[in-house]
Amino acid sequence: MARAAVKAVAGEVNENGDRMLQILGESARLFATKGYDGTSMRDIAEACGISKSLLYHHFVDKDEIYARIALGSTQRLYEFVVDRLPENGTPPDRVRAFMTATGDYFQRYRSNWIASTAAFWSDPELRRHKERVMWRDRYEGLIRQLIQDAIDAGDFRAVDVPLTGRLVLSALNWMHRWYRPDKDLTPGQIAESYFDLIFNGLKAR
Amino acid sequence: MARAAVKAVAGEVNENGDRMLQILGESARLFATKGYDGTSMRDIAEACGISKSLLYHHFVDKDEIYARIALGSTQRLYEFVVDRLPENGTPPDRVRAFMTATGDYFQRYRSNWIASTAAFWSDPELRRHKERVMWRDRYEGLIRQLIQDAIDAGDFRAVDVPLTGRLVLSALNWMHRWYRPDKDLTPGQIAESYFDLIFNGLKAR
Repeated sequence: MARAAVKAVAGEVNENGDRMLQILGESARLFATKGYDGTSMRDIAEACGISKSLLYHHFVDKDEIYARIALGSTQRLYEFVVDRLPENGTPPDRVRAFMTATGDYFQRYRSNWIASTAAFWSDPELRRHKERVMWRDRYEGLIRQLIQDAIDAGDFRAVDVPLTGRLVLSALNWMHRWYRPDKDLTPGQIAESYFDLIFNGLKAR
Repeated sequence: MARAAVKAVAGEVNENGDRMLQILGESARLFATKGYDGTSMRDIAEACGISKSLLYHHFVDKDEIYARIALGSTQRLYEFVVDRLPENGTPPDRVRAFMTATGDYFQRYRSNWIASTAAFWSDPELRRHKERVMWRDRYEGLIRQLIQDAIDAGDFRAVDVPLTGRLVLSALNWMHRWYRPDKDLTPGQIAESYFDLIFNGLKAR
């Protein structure tokens, strides 16, 4: 291929990629604020400043946009967290890192998180829901493993592992219900405080 | 009023009361399983085994039914929990009682809870939403007060009260996302285990 043609194609790919990211970002924001049902393809096109026909050039329908946001976000959360576990940290350090990384991820992709959580429980497409559940289970399996490691190392007492995992995930998952970005603490700091509360306990010594 | 007339009226009131409870119960179950939008007045009438016109005799529309379920449930949760705080218990006992009572309430009114939570965040009617928020805030204010009492009494260390309250509420609020009634533990027992985890902490001593 001639150099000019390569450049043109590369340019188009980049432009398409940027456009896709813009559409996904605006859609996530709209789904998070107006809900899936309250958001139309027209709303999305307007928010992106593009025509409806250009929007349909990228996505068959609203459901396809949603699928990209939702599926991607559960899988990416898992990968984001795994990448941030300190390899040589103590087991409690790794539990703390799991929690703060989830907080950081939430802060970075808040619209996606909200849009994706809202629809997680009512996804009409079974196959897609199963794939998300698989990533969610992998993510939950990871925190259970980290808790078990901390027990085996003698750092945690012999607590009920699934229930402790649920306590950790409840704290993190519920954050999107009350967190306001204009407050003092970042989600990562809140997650760190939760770790301190759960690790050290409330009991005065 | 003649005795027979009194009896007839009383009978009608009871029948109306029972009918209302039946309608509210079936509606909550339908809202919880099919969602608010997915449930029609026809579905509700069919589930109750009554005609649509009899249903409309009791409620103007679906929204009125929903309002009764939703508003009632936040207020009743608060009152249910307050009634179960041991007056002469230690401050930590009272925090534990707050948690287990919430678990018991959840178990008893699970359909209402789910129907009401699902719509809490997207209630289109501002006045109603404000009233629910008031009861929710009162409920959240109660757990904060109980935590503060436990700190003042020297039973809890000097933790961040709002954040600790959120940790407790997150654990309880998230339960409806994963709890299956066929599992071993009751929601009250789960709440009690959460209390133990948070109070004593994970750290091995």
